[in-house]
Amino acid sequence: MRKIIKNGTIVTAADTYQADLLIEDEKIAMIGQGFDETSAEIVDASGRYIFPGAIDPHTHLEMPFGGTVSKDDFETGTIAAAYGGTTTVIDFCLTDKGKPLQNSIDQWHAKSQDKSVIDYSFHLMISEMNERVLDQLPSVIEDEGITSFKVFMAYKNVFQSDDGTLFKTLEQAKNLGALVMVHAENGDVIDHLVKKALDAGQTDPIYHALTRPPEVEGEATNRAAELTGLADSQLYVVHVTCEQAVSAIAAARKKGYNVIGETCPQYLVLDQSYLEKPDFEGAKYVWSPPLREKHHQEVLWNALKTGDLQTLGSDQCSFDFKGQKDLGKDDFTKIPNGGPIIEDRVSILFSEGVKKGRISLNEFVDITSTKIAKTFGLFPQKGTISVGADADIVIFDPDVERTISVETSHMAADYNPFEGMQVTGQTVSVLSRGEFVIKDQQFVGKIGSGRYVKRSKFGSPTSSQEKLYQK
Amino acid sequence: MRKIIKNGTIVTAADTYQADLLIEDEKIAMIGQGFDETSAEIVDASGRYIFPGAIDPHTHLEMPFGGTVSKDDFETGTIAAAYGGTTTVIDFCLTDKGKPLQNSIDQWHAKSQDKSVIDYSFHLMISEMNERVLDQLPSVIEDEGITSFKVFMAYKNVFQSDDGTLFKTLEQAKNLGALVMVHAENGDVIDHLVKKALDAGQTDPIYHALTRPPEVEGEATNRAAELTGLADSQLYVVHVTCEQAVSAIAAARKKGYNVIGETCPQYLVLDQSYLEKPDFEGAKYVWSPPLREKHHQEVLWNALKTGDLQTLGSDQCSFDFKGQKDLGKDDFTKIPNGGPIIEDRVSILFSEGVKKGRISLNEFVDITSTKIAKTFGLFPQKGTISVGADADIVIFDPDVERTISVETSHMAADYNPFEGMQVTGQTVSVLSRGEFVIKDQQFVGKIGSGRYVKRSKFGSPTSSQEKLYQK
Amino acid sequence: MRKIIKNGTIVTAADTYQADLLIEDEKIAMIGQGFDETSAEIVDASGRYIFPGAIDPHTHLEMPFGGTVSKDDFETGTIAAAYGGTTTVIDFCLTDKGKPLQNSIDQWHAKSQDKSVIDYSFHLMISEMNERVLDQLPSVIEDEGITSFKVFMAYKNVFQSDDGTLFKTLEQAKNLGALVMVHAENGDVIDHLVKKALDAGQTDPIYHALTRPPEVEGEATNRAAELTGLADSQLYVVHVTCEQAVSAIAAARKKGYNVIGETCPQYLVLDQSYLEKPDFEGAKYVWSPPLREKHHQEVLWNALKTGDLQTLGSDQCSFDFKGQKDLGKDDFTKIPNGGPIIEDRVSILFSEGVKKGRISLNEFVDITSTKIAKTFGLFPQKGTISVGADADIVIFDPDVERTISVETSHMAADYNPFEGMQVTGQTVSVLSRGEFVIKDQQFVGKIGSGRYVKRSKFGSPTSSQEKLYQK
Amino acid sequence: MRKIIKNGTIVTAADTYQADLLIEDEKIAMIGQGFDETSAEIVDASGRYIFPGAIDPHTHLEMPFGGTVSKDDFETGTIAAAYGGTTTVIDFCLTDKGKPLQNSIDQWHAKSQDKSVIDYSFHLMISEMNERVLDQLPSVIEDEGITSFKVFMAYKNVFQSDDGTLFKTLEQAKNLGALVMVHAENGDVIDHLVKKALDAGQTDPIYHALTRPPEVEGEATNRAAELTGLADSQLYVVHVTCEQAVSAIAAARKKGYNVIGETCPQYLVLDQSYLEKPDFEGAKYVWSPPLREKHHQEVLWNALKTGDLQTLGSDQCSFDFKGQKDLGKDDFTKIPNGGPIIEDRVSILFSEGVKKGRISLNEFVDITSTKIAKTFGLFPQKGTISVGADADIVIFDPDVERTISVETSHMAADYNPFEGMQVTGQTVSVLSRGEFVIKDQQFVGKIGSGRYVKRSKFGSPTSSQEKLYQK
Ligand SMILES: [Zn+2]
Ligand SMILES: [Zn+2]
Ligand SMILES: [Zn+2]
Ligand SMILES: [Zn+2]
Ligand SMILES: [Zn+2]
Ligand SMILES: [Zn+2]
Ligand SMILES: [Zn+2]
Ligand SMILES: [Zn+2]
Repeated sequence: MRKIIKNGTIVTAADTYQADLLIEDEKIAMIGQGFDETSAEIVDASGRYIFPGAIDPHTHLEMPFGGTVSKDDFETGTIAAAYGGTTTVIDFCLTDKGKPLQNSIDQWHAKSQDKSVIDYSFHLMISEMNERVLDQLPSVIEDEGITSFKVFMAYKNVFQSDDGTLFKTLEQAKNLGALVMVHAENGDVIDHLVKKALDAGQTDPIYHALTRPPEVEGEATNRAAELTGLADSQLYVVHVTCEQAVSAIAAARKKGYNVIGETCPQYLVLDQSYLEKPDFEGAKYVWSPPLREKHHQEVLWNALKTGDLQTLGSDQCSFDFKGQKDLGKDDFTKIPNGGPIIEDRVSILFSEGVKKGRISLNEFVDITSTKIAKTFGLFPQKGTISVGADADIVIFDPDVERTISVETSHMAADYNPFEGMQVTGQTVSVLSRGEFVIKDQQFVGKIGSGRYVKRSKFGSPTSSQEKLYQK
Repeated sequence: MRKIIKNGTIVTAADTYQADLLIEDEKIAMIGQGFDETSAEIVDASGRYIFPGAIDPHTHLEMPFGGTVSKDDFETGTIAAAYGGTTTVIDFCLTDKGKPLQNSIDQWHAKSQDKSVIDYSFHLMISEMNERVLDQLPSVIEDEGITSFKVFMAYKNVFQSDDGTLFKTLEQAKNLGALVMVHAENGDVIDHLVKKALDAGQTDPIYHALTRPPEVEGEATNRAAELTGLADSQLYVVHVTCEQAVSAIAAARKKGYNVIGETCPQYLVLDQSYLEKPDFEGAKYVWSPPLREKHHQEVLWNALKTGDLQTLGSDQCSFDFKGQKDLGKDDFTKIPNGGPIIEDRVSILFSEGVKKGRISLNEFVDITSTKIAKTFGLFPQKGTISVGADADIVIFDPDVERTISVETSHMAADYNPFEGMQVTGQTVSVLSRGEFVIKDQQFVGKIGSGRYVKRSKFGSPTSSQEKLYQK
Repeated sequence: MRKIIKNGTIVTAADTYQADLLIEDEKIAMIGQGFDETSAEIVDASGRYIFPGAIDPHTHLEMPFGGTVSKDDFETGTIAAAYGGTTTVIDFCLTDKGKPLQNSIDQWHAKSQDKSVIDYSFHLMISEMNERVLDQLPSVIEDEGITSFKVFMAYKNVFQSDDGTLFKTLEQAKNLGALVMVHAENGDVIDHLVKKALDAGQTDPIYHALTRPPEVEGEATNRAAELTGLADSQLYVVHVTCEQAVSAIAAARKKGYNVIGETCPQYLVLDQSYLEKPDFEGAKYVWSPPLREKHHQEVLWNALKTGDLQTLGSDQCSFDFKGQKDLGKDDFTKIPNGGPIIEDRVSILFSEGVKKGRISLNEFVDITSTKIAKTFGLFPQKGTISVGADADIVIFDPDVERTISVETSHMAADYNPFEGMQVTGQTVSVLSRGEFVIKDQQFVGKIGSGRYVKRSKFGSPTSSQEKLYQK
Repeated sequence: MRKIIKNGTIVTAADTYQADLLIEDEKIAMIGQGFDETSAEIVDASGRYIFPGAIDPHTHLEMPFGGTVSKDDFETGTIAAAYGGTTTVIDFCLTDKGKPLQNSIDQWHAKSQDKSVIDYSFHLMISEMNERVLDQLPSVIEDEGITSFKVFMAYKNVFQSDDGTLFKTLEQAKNLGALVMVHAENGDVIDHLVKKALDAGQTDPIYHALTRPPEVEGEATNRAAELTGLADSQLYVVHVTCEQAVSAIAAARKKGYNVIGETCPQYLVLDQSYLEKPDFEGAKYVWSPPLREKHHQEVLWNALKTGDLQTLGSDQCSFDFKGQKDLGKDDFTKIPNGGPIIEDRVSILFSEGVKKGRISLNEFVDITSTKIAKTFGLFPQKGTISVGADADIVIFDPDVERTISVETSHMAADYNPFEGMQVTGQTVSVLSRGEFVIKDQQFVGKIGSGRYVKRSKFGSPTSSQEKLYQK
């Protein structure tokens, strides 16, 4: 099977140029012009950008949470992702203390393998760090290709680990070539503030935000960064939302610590006032960490520009407003945390970032794809348009103006947090390893065609490149 | 003319992959494999990296300084540059107060046009900013394609401008789409410290460093950055040497100011103790700003990693030890400032940066080429390997171990400041717009074949990409 | 003459306690209770605080400025000062380039000696630093007891010095035991912004503020602080107004630099919006640096609390609204800078600082008196209530609530910038060297009774104390 | 009983002056000269300083620790304190989870009441914060006058509290008018590093320092400070040792948080290399946090100067080298933490601080006495020399040069960590509430004459002064 994508403008994390792409056997075979078109499918991309497929490093598909399960599974979730220009997701595999890690991984494989329409991989949650767990890690890394471990500093009595576990995980990650990810909020303080709010009868969604102030995120981020420096290890801070956390990351990087920060589209464009919407609508905007006051947004944008934040995840974890979010009608702590974001992540960064002049086109590709691939051991198979890479390709119309709405979105939840937002730009077609998943805005993929991807160990981009070079 | 470079590993600011390059009519025509080799020159690059030609944003070729003239002119200087993997230089065109700017530019064209073996462009020095100068700037930008202006905060009574001139230049640069470059040291304080040293009979080279302490660079850098923020303009700080200056730049960037910093290889690997070498040898290491104490080096490396510093220039300005440097035998202020660096800039960053794991291969390309091209309006014609770009190509052997020495270098000066330094990696062959300038480590180019390049206005990379996209 | 002040609460920079004071021969003779009241004047201070007389380190009495002369001279100015609880002022003696310093000092003596009702001293302006000036400094210090020198970084072409002069002054001050004071704003940038505003027809008072933004103060403060660190000298930054300058001072102090900062009451309680008052009333609020946006006020208060700012001056320089301020009716640059503040300085700090819980009573005394005395070589003769100190005493009613108004104030200008402001606390009686100047809110002093005070060299408080101890 | 101290130089936190002191009925009755000497004991203090008695805010007398008990009890400890110029100690009362607080307090009263030769008070350790504890706090504060609570962030499984307990304590302290004290080190990380060291056979004293690096102190200090800001409460960080912790405190203060920092003499003059002394002598220098590398000392000194650190405690907790310290001969974790410091605290600050010009005499008094009294609710009864204050007086010879040695010290332990250190200055005589405890360097006090002091609630100095004023 040969495909030629003609007349588009190819954009990578470094380059923007006009050329045609020849795709053969799942891979990008050639870049140039004037290819032999015999027996090739010709795709016209005139007036369009050709991006490497975006990678979503942060999803929770079909995840149990607070007595319910997130709405989008690997089928609806990855279809929606593809509609939005995402061709790879890395989902968080939850684990249980005391049980074999492989059990959890198997469970995650079971959920995803017959459903995903794009390629996917897993991060592994670490809930304890001891001899027993340690013994299992080499196989997790070598056999499963899972090279990133998640530790929670919040969700007391549920997911939360103590600092000892975090530090030991950092040490082991260094030894084993893995990357530690943290949800950075001080869970102890939140636990107390939540109890106080409930005792005072403060049950509305806005109290979700008020009981998780930015100070608890800033503090925890600084703590994780300092432990990383001490362990001479590597850290990825998920969903950074506020100036306090950005400052902690910037200070750590200035000291030479290997700390990487991710933010999410909701923190870039929505703010805390959304939680005060009447009729319990605030519940639609309940994430942890919560939305912040508006002035934090400019800090996040500038951090994406300067590199103190480096990636954009969705933290996709969708729930219906009716039947799920309303579990918390009388108690904000019972509102399932999260929302449907996987489809609009890329569009929002393009429209608010590139079109408004905050970041360049190349930075946009880096933030949504290339840097993520390099960070999580998927590069250069994923995350770029270069000869030999997987033909995960997005054909994007940069000029369409449209309105985000649950009516036109493909996620399973019954609302869209960006409802009514005007954006410029739209994914037109998407290829996964050379095959169309989305064609002219229609899903044409095959359920279950997505493949599980084993990831390389964490290392400087250098090392993966060296490896490539040496073969 | 067709050339095919086969079997190499192509490296850009984003990518590392194995593919062949097809070159036609000065340009990169195709990237892939299995090209028709008919009537093509085949270049084997097995086991080698293919880099985009490096760009040196900071040279002083055949420049008058302190009663003498820098040794390397556009012929020897660009030949040496090519030997080192550099395919474009941007030289500083000095101007005189009260005289037409075009006079100076014409003089610079006269010096370069029949000599340069690689492409080149000019920055323009601004020594005063008034109605008369202002009237000339549109033509400088539009007709000459000179879109970067240099202001000196040091060299009192020679080049030094006052803060009013700097600020007005920042304002005009913003209006006109140009980038302001500063030599950031407090010239008033230096002038006084120098007089005091001479009065005290302190005439040795080390006093050159001691009379220009890092505080005067840090202060001036902060001053220029603050004025840039106030003018909402754009600034490029040349030759950053110390922690104080890096901190000022980082603080400005954190506030969202558009400030870019350059360092030079000498500051990354040499230190202040070199100025104390006996027999006046310290004079070989006289730069302004001076070499610093060793602990500043790690700060510079980390800043290149985090992006607080973004480019590497050579500040090439060579003088013979005998006959030029020794003008300052009895008075360090008479030592011509500068040294022969143009040839070794790239090698040193590769060896000390990539090979020692401080930066990745892609970062190396970005720092020596791509980011410079984007910053100075040369991109995407220069600075990358993509279809349609100028075929400015470096074939690089990453494994050769060699020793830098004046014996084997091609610069005109009679010494090399990195004499005896072991480096890994060597430029093997270099093409400028598709023609070999260096082939298998031999100069095969043609004197005067380099072409003057008009540069685009300063803007976000986005704008140049948009322009490309729109055509 | 013996006086006994009974039943008051004595407050010093360290202490608050109830005791009686015995005053003999201009000095505080004894502190305790049950003094022999024979032939003593008994002053009842029940329910009142006894403060050491406040010191105003920053006045411009009868000063020529912009073609006019400040309204309050040493008679009205010191009477008003006394009404407000100030018993010593240090006035700025302006000098002219090229003329003998002693001429200026003699002129200042002539203005003050027959007029002042409280003790006074002078700072000396430095407008150039060369051999000739240097030769005069020892006599200025030894004979005149003038141990503080003022350098202007603003007022281009009027008072402004270049960085060389500032640096040389810092060096000399260190050698001679003097303190360098700076007006820290970047005069070059202001000069340009002012011209631009006028060219654009922007002549209203608000443009005074808009052409001197906080960035130019922050930058200049950082510059002066860095030069101080480099010279290992000592610096006093007058009239600090904004977060940018406070940050620069804090950073310098963290590095161990000897930098002291002063703010003024107008910056603590008024803001930039006052310059927009209609009918040219904004002119009443024209100071340099200008009033700032409101959020800077909390930064200044916190800096007084933490010690990054250490003193409060008035920058008294009053002009009538009619006949003086209105010189700038059509051009804000012609508005004489300054206002009548000398009388209300202490009250405002007491009311807004102590009464509102921002600073303690002891800190209040330190900021308005003790720290100033120590900084400027007046301690322990002035600035405290201790046995042997000059009996410069303020009896203060902390509970009176009153409204500041030009109607009730004793300064010569025809308006009061704090008009209508409610304050708590009032100076009841004031003694200067044991004699009443103000008694029960009436001036009872004698014109010309104030004495010129020669000040000690700058040194750590230790050295003055050591000296005391050794005698 | 009347005493007159004649001819000395009185030094307070603000003042230095020559005067005589009249003492009557435990109190300072009068300050001045020429007192009626009838029936008064005359004490000549010619050539001497008169300081307010120093206060040691941080002692552990007769404290159980690691299976042994600290050597100095309230008898030997307070005698030694008095020899060193300290007239009040505040000791840490340890508590046990689940047991009534009053039990512990009674136990501490029992240990101290018949032994102490100077006045004393207690801080209370908080090991849990729940309804039951909360119910007991009002009585602790009102009845016992204990207004400061200590929380440990280290000593995992022994004293360590979680962040929830710390935060709740901060909230309660704010409500109740108490001050929260923290031992700030990340106990989880230390616990792990210690296990790793032991597993690796690293049992020497130096590993005590290496397993508690400055990062864990800096992190914990930042955490405590952020929680304090969030709770709008007040925090006192005990025994600050390093740049990281000082920076965290300075940043918090800059944000307006009410955070106070204490350091100890050992951190100012000893460094980590002491732990490497041969023959297990390193054990003598085992404190938690540990001694640091030398460069931290200058940061601590500067922080005392700028006010980012405000007090000096001893952390007195002495153990014999033979029989106690050597419990850890084969395992550094078994070395009892602490040392005999109570006697030399004041001398060292005087000699290294005042005599070496790092701080002024007044700052010395503030740091060792006045600020401590104000912070812990003892002022103005303690902490100053003013009429009405307790006659806790130190007569100090500032010129004596002497050598610190266990031979001449009065603490019970069999070594002195400052052995051989040359200091200038010596306490000559000490009065506690008007009675000599030390007279001409001889103990003349009475065992058990010290009195327990109930302390005022935490508040700004203002409030205590207002209270005084209002009575
Ligand atoms: Zn999370
Ligand atoms: Zn998540
Ligand atoms: Zn330069
Ligand atoms: Zn240069
Ligand atoms: Zn001024
Ligand atoms: Zn002034
Ligand atoms: Zn402790
Ligand atoms: Zn302790």
